[in-house]
Amino acid sequence: MSGPANDFFGQATDVLSHAADVVAPAIDLAVDRLNPELYAPVRHHLAGGGKRVRAGLVLVSTAAAGAAERVGLPGAVAIELVHNYSLIHDDIMDGDRERRHRPTVWAEFGVGRAIIAGDALAALATQVLLDEPTPERVAAAVSLTWATQEMIAGQADDMAFEDRTSISLEESLRMTAGKTGALLACASSLGAVLAGAPKQTVDALCEFGQHLGIAFQAVDDVLGIWGDPTQTGKAAGNDLLQHKLTIPVVIALEAADHQRHELENLLASLDSAGEVDRAAQLVDKFEGRTGALQLADDHLRAAMGALDRVDLEGTPRRQLDAIAQFVTERNR
Amino acid sequence: MSGPANDFFGQATDVLSHAADVVAPAIDLAVDRLNPELYAPVRHHLAGGGKRVRAGLVLVSTAAAGAAERVGLPGAVAIELVHNYSLIHDDIMDGDRERRHRPTVWAEFGVGRAIIAGDALAALATQVLLDEPTPERVAAAVSLTWATQEMIAGQADDMAFEDRTSISLEESLRMTAGKTGALLACASSLGAVLAGAPKQTVDALCEFGQHLGIAFQAVDDVLGIWGDPTQTGKAAGNDLLQHKLTIPVVIALEAADHQRHELENLLASLDSAGEVDRAAQLVDKFEGRTGALQLADDHLRAAMGALDRVDLEGTPRRQLDAIAQFVTERNR
Repeated sequence: MSGPANDFFGQATDVLSHAADVVAPAIDLAVDRLNPELYAPVRHHLAGGGKRVRAGLVLVSTAAAGAAERVGLPGAVAIELVHNYSLIHDDIMDGDRERRHRPTVWAEFGVGRAIIAGDALAALATQVLLDEPTPERVAAAVSLTWATQEMIAGQADDMAFEDRTSISLEESLRMTAGKTGALLACASSLGAVLAGAPKQTVDALCEFGQHLGIAFQAVDDVLGIWGDPTQTGKAAGNDLLQHKLTIPVVIALEAADHQRHELENLLASLDSAGEVDRAAQLVDKFEGRTGALQLADDHLRAAMGALDRVDLEGTPRRQLDAIAQFVTERNR
Repeated sequence: MSGPANDFFGQATDVLSHAADVVAPAIDLAVDRLNPELYAPVRHHLAGGGKRVRAGLVLVSTAAAGAAERVGLPGAVAIELVHNYSLIHDDIMDGDRERRHRPTVWAEFGVGRAIIAGDALAALATQVLLDEPTPERVAAAVSLTWATQEMIAGQADDMAFEDRTSISLEESLRMTAGKTGALLACASSLGAVLAGAPKQTVDALCEFGQHLGIAFQAVDDVLGIWGDPTQTGKAAGNDLLQHKLTIPVVIALEAADHQRHELENLLASLDSAGEVDRAAQLVDKFEGRTGALQLADDHLRAAMGALDRVDLEGTPRRQLDAIAQFVTERNR
């Protein structure tokens, strides 16, 4: 992880660790406003950490629009609150008992407390932004609420897809644009919104984040099948075992042509490690892996391209590129 | 239900049925903006109806502050969305499989879809208010988000109380002020906020709603023990069987003095209809019933008194009184 080709790695981790340092005490201060009965579940979840990618994007987009960090800070806090509320609720919906090698909130405190802890963080995000209802803060609240609703819509699609044996790539990407893209698009532009930047700057940053979301998800889905479990922290082939219609699977199904039905049946019924290996090989054979990585490259390039349309401060512009490369890295 | 003493009944039902007529299509229009995957669970829940008390209070408070109904409509829609989101999530937390003689959302569609349906309505409420971010609409969003957080705090207290065998009346009333009072206080003042009424008018209406919330809950708790099941729609003594520390129980425990421990043990362990009858008699003997009804009367009077401090339009002022009497009626 050194040398000029990996410069982005050091740059991105610097930006993200700075964001984590700045945003952690501000999140703590916001959480202090909740009913103390909620401290235990909320703090248990937040102590799990996370890369604070969304907070980092807000702070960098603030600088990219030429404003001081403190202008973007409420946005960084609010978006992390929304992201973490969605994780707490998602873990219930997916029945996941572990996140980052620790029990999830519902597994530790029960479903009821996990629901209410998430609800509290969702409302808190809006409160943080509307504490000082300036036009910029109100615009940020509008953007965040819109993104939250898009994220929920994506999650609803994802749940509906669970009942199906196949979906089109278009459906998959629409779902991804909501579930993953909307909040990243909001994160990438929220600093500019808070800085009162021109609409075209906000729009370009939004587009950057939307493409980044798809690129990120495509790589994440590839790692979910072929990634090194010691690096991803997830069991290899787990997504296949759970019959998830991830991007590589959807691409392979579209390419499988007359073997499509056979592949669908295999994917829908597999329940052993041996079958998972065979399915992974078939998805690979039908270009699921290369197709997903190509899709990621295309969207990563489109993300960077969106930024070329507008005038941004030089250093934060390079930091946005670095974060984009970092979160779509294949050896995570 | 006729004669001058019951005038409030006809007046309140007129106001509430008008509110339901006005707000139903506006809620439908808002729900249309959601992902169609969410229509089934959301519409299933909304089709259950409800008295639309909160919408009625918003519309009447709009008129009380001298503004046209359309000014208050987004507030009426938003508060009903928040109220219904909280019901959908509460039903999961409480494990309730039925509401108004129909399956609850989680019982019909599963816990995951019920969580996401509630999340969508919560975000939608903020969207409806911030569609046109005028200063009044922003102030309404701030008020509603604050009330939502207070409601969540009350719900968190309520869950924490489940692990205890007794609580003080002060704790019980603080929890009620959050869980029931906050949203009624917001509903009672939101129309005035949207109308741009002076702070003292908004504050008086808020205080009216806060007292109304406690009066309503005290009566509701009495009916939960001694009410006629054919009128309340709930099994008699259900709250006692579920070991809920309702207002009559808390009052009785405080009055029981040296028999407190005995009553606590009986209440914590009862699990048959015979025991429920005996417990209800004991709670009655220790003034739980009369004490709770006295408390309701005191807060109903305080609610009306708050309105005396400010200048309101005559007809809506009388309608507020009528709604207050209606929702604290003992023969519901």
